[in-house]
Amino acid sequence: MDRIHPVILCGGGGTRLWPRSRQAKPKPFLPLLGDRTLFQLSCDRVSGDRFADPIVVAGEAHREYVGEQARSLSELIVEPEGKNTAPAIALAAHRLPPEAVMLVCPSDHHIGDLDRFNAGVGDAARLASEDWLVSFAITPDRPETGFGYLKAGEPLSIGQRIEQFVEKPDEERAKGFLDQGGYAWNAGIFAFRAGVFLDELKRHRPAMAEAVANAVGSGRAQDRLFRPDRDAFAAIEGESVDYAVMENTDRAAMVAADMRWSDVGNWQALQDIRDSDEAGNSTHGQAELVDCRNVMVDTDGPRVSVIGLSDIAIIVDGNEVLVTTRDGAQNVGKLEGARNQ
Amino acid sequence: MDRIHPVILCGGGGTRLWPRSRQAKPKPFLPLLGDRTLFQLSCDRVSGDRFADPIVVAGEAHREYVGEQARSLSELIVEPEGKNTAPAIALAAHRLPPEAVMLVCPSDHHIGDLDRFNAGVGDAARLASEDWLVSFAITPDRPETGFGYLKAGEPLSIGQRIEQFVEKPDEERAKGFLDQGGYAWNAGIFAFRAGVFLDELKRHRPAMAEAVANAVGSGRAQDRLFRPDRDAFAAIEGESVDYAVMENTDRAAMVAADMRWSDVGNWQALQDIRDSDEAGNSTHGQAELVDCRNVMVDTDGPRVSVIGLSDIAIIVDGNEVLVTTRDGAQNVGKLEGARNQ
Repeated sequence: MDRIHPVILCGGGGTRLWPRSRQAKPKPFLPLLGDRTLFQLSCDRVSGDRFADPIVVAGEAHREYVGEQARSLSELIVEPEGKNTAPAIALAAHRLPPEAVMLVCPSDHHIGDLDRFNAGVGDAARLASEDWLVSFAITPDRPETGFGYLKAGEPLSIGQRIEQFVEKPDEERAKGFLDQGGYAWNAGIFAFRAGVFLDELKRHRPAMAEAVANAVGSGRAQDRLFRPDRDAFAAIEGESVDYAVMENTDRAAMVAADMRWSDVGNWQALQDIRDSDEAGNSTHGQAELVDCRNVMVDTDGPRVSVIGLSDIAIIVDGNEVLVTTRDGAQNVGKLEGARNQ
Repeated sequence: MDRIHPVILCGGGGTRLWPRSRQAKPKPFLPLLGDRTLFQLSCDRVSGDRFADPIVVAGEAHREYVGEQARSLSELIVEPEGKNTAPAIALAAHRLPPEAVMLVCPSDHHIGDLDRFNAGVGDAARLASEDWLVSFAITPDRPETGFGYLKAGEPLSIGQRIEQFVEKPDEERAKGFLDQGGYAWNAGIFAFRAGVFLDELKRHRPAMAEAVANAVGSGRAQDRLFRPDRDAFAAIEGESVDYAVMENTDRAAMVAADMRWSDVGNWQALQDIRDSDEAGNSTHGQAELVDCRNVMVDTDGPRVSVIGLSDIAIIVDGNEVLVTTRDGAQNVGKLEGARNQ
């Protein structure tokens, strides 16, 4: 089988991981889990023999981080501005041969079980080579309301057709999905042929497809750097790949990949995947915890002393200190500090 | 009546108000309530016509703070080292005429009702002029386990004899005192004649009395500064005025002074006397509180953002961040940071 072409998207802002994640240095480029950044770990996962060198799509502001942190890239596509995932993926698809199988990965997720990830990639690539547009599906272990869901339909050679895309449900509905079975989280990882994707984009979003084609046609390639035309790209109406293509195509499929996936979407999610001691506490930087349970401390300098607390996260980053409950972690992005960076 | 001689003791470390209060700049010299420091407020309270200029007793390390913050002092007595309250008060007593009525005040307490304080001072001074050794007694409003208690005995012309001194009780006993009545908190404020105090000290702690007399005899006075002899003072075994004198003398009396007193003993106590909004939150410095109740934030610089918490205090001071529950506030002094300053 031909090599798989990884496409790593660096568009996520990670405002719910403020104040560590900031516009100037967002989530993908931070070493939130161990020594390597989430972006580096994303590159590592797609560095084996069966993969071609990755295409990375990132904004101008983060070009240097990609340069510093990436090893061997096929190409860095610099987006003049963020237009959500559908145009970003379309840019990459244009830079590949139509028959190439793309593996589209966010740069800021965590995958705990690499064997399962690799198995999922194999399954997805095989379905993609049969001209399916494939989403990675994660079996839910809790009634999560922060993710979109995929409803499984008829079985295919591997995996299933996607019968339905479900927007972020409320808690009652999410509990129903969990009880009922047959629903999975949409992990935002995709596999499809470049040409198949572009054909489907043209069918369902012809204006976007044309604008991207123009932006690529008038773009400039130099030294493994590709810059689409700014004006053509500016004309695009931004939209996610789910909305623009996956929910509309007749050929949407899903493969299960129970690979201990996390979107590392907020401090609670990060706390859940970090190593903790027997009391559930985890600390990065100088900290003293007394009578604490499930407390996460992450400080870039000052010592943090905590007495008598449970189920909270405390983040110190330069001129900002955040103290939040686990539930409150969802709302970090709405704080004054996170909004006015 | 002759003027009352205030004696303001600056020996308290305030380690439970760490990290704002530090050895180098402890609690009395911090503006913890409004613009003026606790020491300044202590001086203000004894600045009326019926008071002589105060004597201040402080350590060498804090001499400059006294100089900066005090207005008109009678004398600053610099202790070569801290020896608890009995020797400190004895030093001051030696620097006054025997018949002088002393009013001994800590420099780091809060008194909310100045009229009641002034009434208490009048009562205490009158009893002191009858050669009683007088403690200020605060009627308890909760079963506090952090204070010593005074048990009221037979009535005097004003106030009562002290029948018994009770060490910090456990909670059950403290509840009993509250239900039973007749018990009051020992506020650590005293009035007595200088000569009466020294006589009683000589009777009950002759070695200490002699050592202090020697330290004063070989001391040096210059420019309203008095330095007792270092070696003579070093020989003293430190002890509180309660242990050394008040619990032993036959002439211990108490006067009620329900003056909204607080020892500002920890962050919880400070939170209780600070102004708060309708949700019970109080902030000093840049802070954003979302879904919070009874949260106190005190930051010397960084912004503090808090989501979803109740009944905690968050203190940011230079290289230290403290997050504690109200109950935990009692244990702040045991933290690594507070111990190894």
